[in-house]
Amino acid sequence: MATSPSAKRQKSSKDVPYELIYWPGLPGRGEHVRLALEEAGAEYTDTAHVEDGVKTVLAQIADENLGDERNPPPLAPPILKHADLLISQTPNILLYLGPRLGLAPKPDDEDSDGVYRVNALALTALDGLSNEAHDTHHPIATGLYYEDQKEESKRKAKDYVDNRLPKFFGYFERVLKGEASGEGPWLYGGSLTYADLVLFQCLDGLKFAFPNALKRLEESGDYKRIFELYDAVKERPKIQEYLASERRQKYAEGIYRHYPELDEEAAAA
Amino acid sequence: MATSPSAKRQKSSKDVPYELIYWPGLPGRGEHVRLALEEAGAEYTDTAHVEDGVKTVLAQIADENLGDERNPPPLAPPILKHADLLISQTPNILLYLGPRLGLAPKPDDEDSDGVYRVNALALTALDGLSNEAHDTHHPIATGLYYEDQKEESKRKAKDYVDNRLPKFFGYFERVLKGEASGEGPWLYGGSLTYADLVLFQCLDGLKFAFPNALKRLEESGDYKRIFELYDAVKERPKIQEYLASERRQKYAEGIYRHYPELDEEAAAA
Repeated sequence: MATSPSAKRQKSSKDVPYELIYWPGLPGRGEHVRLALEEAGAEYTDTAHVEDGVKTVLAQIADENLGDERNPPPLAPPILKHADLLISQTPNILLYLGPRLGLAPKPDDEDSDGVYRVNALALTALDGLSNEAHDTHHPIATGLYYEDQKEESKRKAKDYVDNRLPKFFGYFERVLKGEASGEGPWLYGGSLTYADLVLFQCLDGLKFAFPNALKRLEESGDYKRIFELYDAVKERPKIQEYLASERRQKYAEGIYRHYPELDEEAAAA
Repeated sequence: MATSPSAKRQKSSKDVPYELIYWPGLPGRGEHVRLALEEAGAEYTDTAHVEDGVKTVLAQIADENLGDERNPPPLAPPILKHADLLISQTPNILLYLGPRLGLAPKPDDEDSDGVYRVNALALTALDGLSNEAHDTHHPIATGLYYEDQKEESKRKAKDYVDNRLPKFFGYFERVLKGEASGEGPWLYGGSLTYADLVLFQCLDGLKFAFPNALKRLEESGDYKRIFELYDAVKERPKIQEYLASERRQKYAEGIYRHYPELDEEAAAA
């Protein structure tokens, strides 16, 4: 079939919806991508909500997939497809989307290096508040069940709650105190960036996984600013609408799991 | 003092050496940054080789440091300072340096999205072959000594060698087989990128930490391409010169540690 020059232009342009390729049934790492797309009101498809969407995920990460002439194969979801581009790794997808969705400075903005500062904040939140949170219930092997590493999990979760959460919460509180965060509740430059959405999702997951510990940390008053940021994200109209929708999935067997034995005891009333 | 317009331009330009801020005494995560700077022949300073350089690191990560008007404080080294920009997080520093040093496509190249593909590869190597390698000797708590988590380390290291290394090696072998890797030994686009340097450094560290396991994996022939990439990086003239210099530090109490009890048994001769 012959295509007109404008049809060709259309095809090679990026004026097409984003395609998120991620597991159905849990928010997981894909949630960071969803929150960015939702906040921006971007058009996107999501394999989590498509019949047999899981087959798309499995085909991407199959041992037989060698990628294509432009894109290396991805190791794991989340995967973003946008026109001819296919990329993986949560912080990398956010890096790509951020400037396009108005959630990070663009290279031709006055703050042309701002995206590197936002990326550092997002990477740090993902390291300490998502990857390490996952490791509390899988300290020995991701391929084993939690039940097969429960004793080690208890030791690791205690260290996580006692030492790592205060370290990372203290860090982000410090970022919010610093001048570079600008006016308002946000981490960088006085306006909402994807790093704020990442921190929100991490806090939300941690509240689910470690409710007693998070309650104590919030009530300590030592991390006032990060919980204000959490509320500020939650009150964004598009985020509010999204969180109330069917598109937002419930926590399940993912990064954030609620095992009461890994949380601390509830404070006496 | 009055400054001429050209002096002002000079000050605000980026025509100044890069400053790497990292711990002395071990290659660590800073090594990924060094290899990129060395391969490119870039001018840089390194706190690892400056008297009292450790004080610069400690001042950056001190609880009192709130950053400055443009830069949030960093949580941890490596940190890169370049003119007014100060950023942290290994993959983020490489992302910044890559296009500038000719080690990743630039935004105005024909392959304008290439940097996102390179970034995904670097993130994946750092996840599986650096962060997870670290966790083999610190599965429970980074704040405890290895000796206090030795039994857990043995369990984790066995899983790492048996399951995780083949998973990640198999993945990168697949990337190298794929069309997007192009001609020659490199991961992406037929030319050396910083993702290749990251994979090289990870393999080098793993060879130090798990010599028996790495020997077996190399001799299996299943991962021919990644070991060819390793050799190809090692033979680059500037890398060769660097590795033989005093600037290259010996492995020590860092990410890659050689504890014979965590490696597998040597194969019978």
